[in-house]
Amino acid sequence: MKTIPLIVAGYGHVGRAFITLLKEKKEDLAVRYGLGFEIMALVKADGSYATGEPLDAASFSRDGKAWTEGNPSWQAGMKVSAAAASVAAGGCLVDCTPSELHSGEPGLSYIQEALDRGLNVATASKGALVVAFRRIMTEASAKGLSVKFSGATAAALPTVDVGMISLAAARIEGIQGVLNGTSNYILTRMGEGLSYADALQVAQSHGIAEPDPSYDVEGLDSAAKLVLIANACLGTDFIMDDVRAGGISGMPADVVRAARAEGKAVKLLAAASPSRKGKGWSLHVGPSVIDPTHPLFHVNGTEKGITFLTDTMGSVTVTGGRSSPRGAAAALLKDLVNIYRQL
Amino acid sequence: MKTIPLIVAGYGHVGRAFITLLKEKKEDLAVRYGLGFEIMALVKADGSYATGEPLDAASFSRDGKAWTEGNPSWQAGMKVSAAAASVAAGGCLVDCTPSELHSGEPGLSYIQEALDRGLNVATASKGALVVAFRRIMTEASAKGLSVKFSGATAAALPTVDVGMISLAAARIEGIQGVLNGTSNYILTRMGEGLSYADALQVAQSHGIAEPDPSYDVEGLDSAAKLVLIANACLGTDFIMDDVRAGGISGMPADVVRAARAEGKAVKLLAAASPSRKGKGWSLHVGPSVIDPTHPLFHVNGTEKGITFLTDTMGSVTVTGGRSSPRGAAAALLKDLVNIYRQL
Repeated sequence: MKTIPLIVAGYGHVGRAFITLLKEKKEDLAVRYGLGFEIMALVKADGSYATGEPLDAASFSRDGKAWTEGNPSWQAGMKVSAAAASVAAGGCLVDCTPSELHSGEPGLSYIQEALDRGLNVATASKGALVVAFRRIMTEASAKGLSVKFSGATAAALPTVDVGMISLAAARIEGIQGVLNGTSNYILTRMGEGLSYADALQVAQSHGIAEPDPSYDVEGLDSAAKLVLIANACLGTDFIMDDVRAGGISGMPADVVRAARAEGKAVKLLAAASPSRKGKGWSLHVGPSVIDPTHPLFHVNGTEKGITFLTDTMGSVTVTGGRSSPRGAAAALLKDLVNIYRQL
Repeated sequence: MKTIPLIVAGYGHVGRAFITLLKEKKEDLAVRYGLGFEIMALVKADGSYATGEPLDAASFSRDGKAWTEGNPSWQAGMKVSAAAASVAAGGCLVDCTPSELHSGEPGLSYIQEALDRGLNVATASKGALVVAFRRIMTEASAKGLSVKFSGATAAALPTVDVGMISLAAARIEGIQGVLNGTSNYILTRMGEGLSYADALQVAQSHGIAEPDPSYDVEGLDSAAKLVLIANACLGTDFIMDDVRAGGISGMPADVVRAARAEGKAVKLLAAASPSRKGKGWSLHVGPSVIDPTHPLFHVNGTEKGITFLTDTMGSVTVTGGRSSPRGAAAALLKDLVNIYRQL
C-alpha cells in the first residue's frame, strides 16, 4: 500500500466533486491499485486548510459549505508554496482552479510551485497549460515528474490517453473533435427546429449552459482543449492565439435546418490539420456541416467525441464520457492512479 | 537512445507485416521515443533465423518468401528457448503465432520461455492468454515483466488500453463490443438485402472472410477477444468455456431484414454483464437486435467497436481501427513502445 499526499487547489464544483469521489473510492483504490491518497492541504484564493495531518471533510466544510471563521485548520492567506510544506516530494498537486486562458493564473503559479517542490500535477484547469504547455512539460520531464491533464481535455472522454498511448507509434495525420457539450446540445436542439436563442435558453434552464455562455458558444473552451490535445498528441507548442476559432453564437436556424433537410448536421468541430504550407499543423474551431458517414455525426446532445486519423491504425473515434464536475473529478482520479500505479 | 533486442515468433501475415512496419518506422521511433528495436531471432515452427547479430530482411526472406535452404542464418530445429540466448534479459518476445484456442500452443510455451528468460512479451495471438491469462500475468508481474496483447484484442481498435488506463479508478459496470469485422461485414451486407450465403461469398471474394469462415462466424474470435478484455479490465479469470458463445452462421435473412424494417440492426455482440447470481460476471457472444440509440449501432462493415459502461465516467465508446495484418502489426508496435518508453 502506497500512500500519496495531495494538495487540492480550488474548492468549486470540480474540487468538491473530487473530494467527494476520493472518499467514495477510498477502499476500491486500495484494493485495486494498492494506492491511498491523503489530502494534506486544500488551497483557496484567500488561504488554505492545513494542519500537518490528513484532512477530512469536516476540516474544511460544514453542510457542504466552506468553513473558515473559527476553523482551527484554516490558515488565512496561506498559499500553495506554504501549504506544500506539509506534502513530501513525490506527492501531487490536484489543480481544480478556474481556467483563465490569458494569464493562466492561478494555476500557472501553483503548478510552478508544485514542480519546484518535486510534486506531480493532475489538473482539471486549462489555463496554465494553454499558456505554457511545452515549458511546463519540459520542466516536469527534466525533474522526472508527471503533469497530467485529462480533466482539462474533455474530462471523462478519453482524448490525450488515446492519442498518446493507444495510438503510440502510429503517425497521427489529423484530429477532429466535438469537444464542447454545451454547444453540441444547442446545435442538437436547433436541429430539432429551435432557434439559437430558444435552444440556448433551454440549455440554460437545464444548467447545461452558463448564464454567460460565451466561453462555450464562442468556441473558446473547444479551442483550449484543442490546443492541449494537439500539443500532447502531435508534439506541437501552440497557444490560444494560434487557433482560428469561431463559435456558434447567433447561428441562423436556417443553416441548421437546411443541413438537417439534406440528412446532414452542423457540429462545432475542433480540428488539427496538416498545414497547407507543408510542415506543421493548423488548428481551427468552427461550425461545420458534416454528413452521416462522418464518425462524429451521431454525437448528439451534451455528448462529446474525438476522431484521430492515423497512418497505420486507420481512423479511431472515441465518444461519450460524462460531462459534469463528477466526470472531471473522475478524470483527475484516473490521472492520479496512472501516475502512481505499477503498470 | 535505448536499443531493445527482439525475438519475433511466427512469419505469417502478421509477422511479416510487423517486420515491414518496424523497418518503416525505425527513424520515427528513434526521434519520437528514443527507442530502437533489433530483431535478434525470427522463430518458425521448424527452426529459427539467428546469427547473434541483428537480422535484416535479407537474412530470412527472398522476394518476401522465407529462405531456409543454404541460408547461413537458418538454424533448423532451433526453438524459442535456444533463440532467446541471443537476447538479453529485458528484451521482448513478439508473438505472431497462430491463435490455437484449446492448447494455447505454440504461444503458451513461447511466452513461458520468454518469461523464464526475463523477457517482456507483446503478442498478437490469443491462444496462450485465453488458456492461462491469470497465471501468465501473475508470473510476469512477480518478475517485473510486461505482457501486452493489444494485437490480440481487436488490434488497431483500442480496447484494453481504454479499459485499463483511460477508465482507471472508474468501476466498469458492463462491456459490449462488435469485435469481429468479418461477421459485422456479413451482417451489414445482409442488412442491405443479401442472404447469409451470398453475403459470406462476397466477404470471401474480398478476402474479408477465410475460405473456412467458422472461426469468425461461429463467434469464437469474438469470444476469445472478450475473454482477454474481460480478464484485463474486470480482473476476472475466464477461459473460453466460460463464454456462452453463438455466431451468425446461417442467420436467416428475414431476421436481419425485419430488424432493418423497424430501423434497427443485427450485430454480433460480445458482452460482459454482471452475473444474475449477484457477484461476478457472465460473458456472452451472440447476434442481438439493437436500436439506433445503441452506441454501436453505426459500426458497419468491417469496422469494430467497444462500449464500456462505468459508474463515474458514463458510457465510453471506441470505434474504428484498421482490421488487417498491418493493423495488428501497428498494435504490436504500440505495445512495444508503451513497454519501453518513459511515460
